[in-house]
Amino acid sequence: MTAGGAFATLASPRDRRRTPPGARRPNGQERAVAKTLAEIAEHCGAALEGDGSRLVVGPADLEGASADEVSFLANPRYAGLLGTTGAAGVLVGADAECAREGLTLLRVEDPNRAFSRVVELFADGWSPPAAGVHPSAVVDESASLGEGVSIAAHCVVGPGVTLGAGAVLHPGVVLGEGARVGDGSVLHPHVVLYPLCEVGARCVLHAGAVLGADGFGFDPTAAGWEKVPQCGRVVVGDDVEIGANSCIDRARFGATRIGNMVKIDNLVQVGHNCLVEDAALLCAQVGMAGTATIRTRVILAGQAGVGGHLEIGAGTQVGGQAGVTGNLPAGGAFTGWPARPARQALRETAHLKRLPELARTVRELQERLDELEKGAR
Amino acid sequence: MTAGGAFATLASPRDRRRTPPGARRPNGQERAVAKTLAEIAEHCGAALEGDGSRLVVGPADLEGASADEVSFLANPRYAGLLGTTGAAGVLVGADAECAREGLTLLRVEDPNRAFSRVVELFADGWSPPAAGVHPSAVVDESASLGEGVSIAAHCVVGPGVTLGAGAVLHPGVVLGEGARVGDGSVLHPHVVLYPLCEVGARCVLHAGAVLGADGFGFDPTAAGWEKVPQCGRVVVGDDVEIGANSCIDRARFGATRIGNMVKIDNLVQVGHNCLVEDAALLCAQVGMAGTATIRTRVILAGQAGVGGHLEIGAGTQVGGQAGVTGNLPAGGAFTGWPARPARQALRETAHLKRLPELARTVRELQERLDELEKGAR
Amino acid sequence: MTAGGAFATLASPRDRRRTPPGARRPNGQERAVAKTLAEIAEHCGAALEGDGSRLVVGPADLEGASADEVSFLANPRYAGLLGTTGAAGVLVGADAECAREGLTLLRVEDPNRAFSRVVELFADGWSPPAAGVHPSAVVDESASLGEGVSIAAHCVVGPGVTLGAGAVLHPGVVLGEGARVGDGSVLHPHVVLYPLCEVGARCVLHAGAVLGADGFGFDPTAAGWEKVPQCGRVVVGDDVEIGANSCIDRARFGATRIGNMVKIDNLVQVGHNCLVEDAALLCAQVGMAGTATIRTRVILAGQAGVGGHLEIGAGTQVGGQAGVTGNLPAGGAFTGWPARPARQALRETAHLKRLPELARTVRELQERLDELEKGAR
Repeated sequence: MTAGGAFATLASPRDRRRTPPGARRPNGQERAVAKTLAEIAEHCGAALEGDGSRLVVGPADLEGASADEVSFLANPRYAGLLGTTGAAGVLVGADAECAREGLTLLRVEDPNRAFSRVVELFADGWSPPAAGVHPSAVVDESASLGEGVSIAAHCVVGPGVTLGAGAVLHPGVVLGEGARVGDGSVLHPHVVLYPLCEVGARCVLHAGAVLGADGFGFDPTAAGWEKVPQCGRVVVGDDVEIGANSCIDRARFGATRIGNMVKIDNLVQVGHNCLVEDAALLCAQVGMAGTATIRTRVILAGQAGVGGHLEIGAGTQVGGQAGVTGNLPAGGAFTGWPARPARQALRETAHLKRLPELARTVRELQERLDELEKGAR
Repeated sequence: MTAGGAFATLASPRDRRRTPPGARRPNGQERAVAKTLAEIAEHCGAALEGDGSRLVVGPADLEGASADEVSFLANPRYAGLLGTTGAAGVLVGADAECAREGLTLLRVEDPNRAFSRVVELFADGWSPPAAGVHPSAVVDESASLGEGVSIAAHCVVGPGVTLGAGAVLHPGVVLGEGARVGDGSVLHPHVVLYPLCEVGARCVLHAGAVLGADGFGFDPTAAGWEKVPQCGRVVVGDDVEIGANSCIDRARFGATRIGNMVKIDNLVQVGHNCLVEDAALLCAQVGMAGTATIRTRVILAGQAGVGGHLEIGAGTQVGGQAGVTGNLPAGGAFTGWPARPARQALRETAHLKRLPELARTVRELQERLDELEKGAR
Repeated sequence: MTAGGAFATLASPRDRRRTPPGARRPNGQERAVAKTLAEIAEHCGAALEGDGSRLVVGPADLEGASADEVSFLANPRYAGLLGTTGAAGVLVGADAECAREGLTLLRVEDPNRAFSRVVELFADGWSPPAAGVHPSAVVDESASLGEGVSIAAHCVVGPGVTLGAGAVLHPGVVLGEGARVGDGSVLHPHVVLYPLCEVGARCVLHAGAVLGADGFGFDPTAAGWEKVPQCGRVVVGDDVEIGANSCIDRARFGATRIGNMVKIDNLVQVGHNCLVEDAALLCAQVGMAGTATIRTRVILAGQAGVGGHLEIGAGTQVGGQAGVTGNLPAGGAFTGWPARPARQALRETAHLKRLPELARTVRELQERLDELEKGAR
């Protein structure tokens, strides 16, 4: 147990969101110096309303912010917090109203995006990986390394691998024979590309992601199961992000294909021969069975599952934990198990809640009817 | 964004499934040379109906195939595609009918399995791992290495480990003290066996699979939780396949046991002291809580969950995302939450859909009854 | 297939739970010598009722135990097994009754916890990791290493990292720049801490766990998605256990925070900016979307999901596979999709089962009413 006694609650909201005071940055320097609100306004293109000379030391949310922090209001639902926040300044949109004395407003078109600029301004930096090959890495002599690549300690780069210019392999990355990584892509620790798998340019693969493990195909036999050979590959487009410990299986033949700009969260499973089209978004723990097709800009919320050989039309959104058991048209919103139009699922859920009452009503009707029938006889 | 413009759709179906033209194999050779349909027929034991002299360069599905590819028809649902496929030849079963001119049929008993032979014929090969121990691997001198084992770069083999003949450890595999791997088993990159865990012969463990992490056992205390010691092991039979990043926990005492011929997909969780009997099949993201028992040939579809201390009878199939909350008998089909007979779940789902209408009907009955009762008074 | 023939069932219950006879411990010694029941009673503070001189060689469960094993009865549901168990002795609670001849009882206050002491007594030990830094590890010279730390083969320790006294890094652990690990914490193979992430004292992180991958934040644009910079960290308290291949994302700014004594199972996803308070317990495959808050001692059962920005009150328990779609109060029990009070969910499920019958009843009422109305006209 901690010195402070059991079950002291962990953290004030403020504590939760801040770098501990006095923390030194890994490069040995003190925290970034404070910035004035005017400097911040200039950095993110905001119009200043109020005192621009106040100094702040970092970003915070409205609820947890203190007088040396800057915050933002993106969702009108939280507008009330403008009246109570301790922040020195708040990024707000065009229509936010707040006449509170002592609170400086930084008016921008899109407070959420502008705040990302502020977050970056105060971010504790860390060293970019050095270009070159660490002596402990094992790189096959037939591999082709682009200009400025960085191959960290204990990586393994197989025969015939191609690395684009500026590609970064963090420690422990393993690239199988003939794998390809495009320009500027970053593979975090322990990412594995099985042989012949390809990743495009400017991708980010987080730690432990596995591309190209065998698809899960077995034919039943009298003795058990016979493996269906998995001889295809995984081909990933440009500007793709794949989360930690996610898995994308190689195809039976041809390729499991992930389009450009696709964003995949952690612990996601994409089965063999799936097609995930451009800019689709797969949240954490989503699972897609084999040969499923996800059209462009589809969004699958967390833990949703898609059955094999199904297709989901462009732009359709599937709710968290939903189970897709049939093809879904484009442009819809679906949820529940089995996945059905979200509006219908909500209505059914509401009716389900009233089902005990309905059953009682039916029993009463039955009794009244019995009574009436007696009289009618 | 990609040079080719935003949101160009990724890929034609054809593009999706083919090695890019001109791709060189990692060993530096050109793609496998073309084969005649007659050669293919001979390779997979098919009876040729049509022109056997046509050359093909690879396998494809019916929809995406072009004139230099060979395809197959396994599911009668797709029989219509025989009339439109661009393939030069198609593997079909005994009863497929297609009199289309210019389409060669390769008639076999089981087109799906025969096609696996064709897929292998055209597969881009990659080098088998070299036998021997890579100089960067760290192998304890007390480990026992069978004949012809292959231990790749950056592996760690602990004291007392036993590796059977021909076992393959891909880069970064870690075998804890006293672990055992049977003859011919292949452990892909970063697989971890905790101390004393055992894997049988001819198994395949995909990248990132973890066998033997502590079971999740904690007794509540006033201060929080007290760990229940997890002193057992994991014992895996022969001919087992375990998917990428799957986890099988060690037992509290004794062993968590995986039978022979069991097939486990990616991201699956098997809790401590579970028993998974021979030839059971666990699809991706399935979770089994502690001390669950899965009898022989059970199939758990993707994302299904099984509660602790439960048993599922031999040959039973559990649907995707189903939640098993009680013992299930042998030979059944169950689905939904909580898992119930599949037929019942479907019926309930259909009735649920009509529930809003039912509620309306009941209201109408109520009104009609009110009216009648008024008249009867 | 195995030599012994296809589908011989794997294992008798007994076989399932025991170290194979004759197994040698990795250190080359034979199995731990047998203990008398009297020795065991003394070891775990039990009152002996019966013959204390009998020798046992290990722990087993009631059903599978043989005459040279000791077992325990914790759950009254299994009291009947006292009459049939083959065990030489059984740990029982104060009120267990069993007059069976030849069965020795070891009476304790809490048989489950006392049995943990017995399990430890017979556990096959394995060597503790040696203190010091393995020559193949790559440790930045600016890292600060506490007394007695153990850094195994192929670890990578970045600039500015701090390791507390007695911390253990198993093979392949990667610690990014500025990461911190507290006194006595153990990181199993391939654990990854991204830069600046912190783990407290006496924690256990199992193989493949990833702390600090980017939170999943993307703003929609005409061209696809724009990444929301993820500049925060992950901060984990003391006495925390995190399961194999689990993922905890870094915050957008500030920290994703895991309290003291939190226990997290395998394959769990914790999104960016979440707060998991002291002694919460997250079972396998649980998923928490961004900025969710889990108060102290909350329990999320396996595969449960929590939506973004939601809060679950202290001590509340959420059932397996439940989908939390709104805030939940403290001290409750919730289950199902969407998560609702467990009692209500059970009632609705029961009514759903009777829905087909209800629909039939309503049709009958309709007919009887038609008949009555005809008569009333």
